[in-house]
Amino acid sequence: MSLLDLFFGEKKKTASVAKERLQIILAHERGERSAHAPDYLPALRAELIAVVKKYVQINDSDIQIHHQGNLDVLEVKIDLPDTRPGNLAGPSAS
Amino acid sequence: MSLLDLFFGEKKKTASVAKERLQIILAHERGERSAHAPDYLPALRAELIAVVKKYVQINDSDIQIHHQGNLDVLEVKIDLPDTRPGNLAGPSAS
Repeated sequence: MSLLDLFFGEKKKTASVAKERLQIILAHERGERSAHAPDYLPALRAELIAVVKKYVQINDSDIQIHHQGNLDVLEVKIDLPDTRPGNLAGPSAS
Repeated sequence: MSLLDLFFGEKKKTASVAKERLQIILAHERGERSAHAPDYLPALRAELIAVVKKYVQINDSDIQIHHQGNLDVLEVKIDLPDTRPGNLAGPSAS
């Protein structure tokens, strides 16, 4: 599995034109002796999202939180708008 | 490949006791029409690292930047110190 597949999943294969994308992941792995996530994790998540929002627009649907075994993962996947002239109407409709 | 392997790689199998860990990834995929990373990417990277540093200690060796094809990835992998009583001397020596 290449790093590209890893981050953007299979979706990219179906896109007619590869879109510009940004992905942010915050993964916390609880150790054998730490039954819970650190109490600062929610605040850290919120602050990371707030920082990204200063640079690009994030929709609620772009944000996912996964829990898998002892792993808590915040995942933010953003399709960036095509900002070339003539495309400034926002995210391309293709 | 499970999400756990994905984020923490094979190292976890050799660790005698699974340590508590945090990983942050910022991945930018250039689209077919965007030859360069956005000019805000370095500032966004720096700000994300600054936010994480407010919560946990990050060593320079924890930070890596990968370039693979049209993918630019900032990866921060942090082994969190064992904060249980009797272990407050900082990162466990095991």
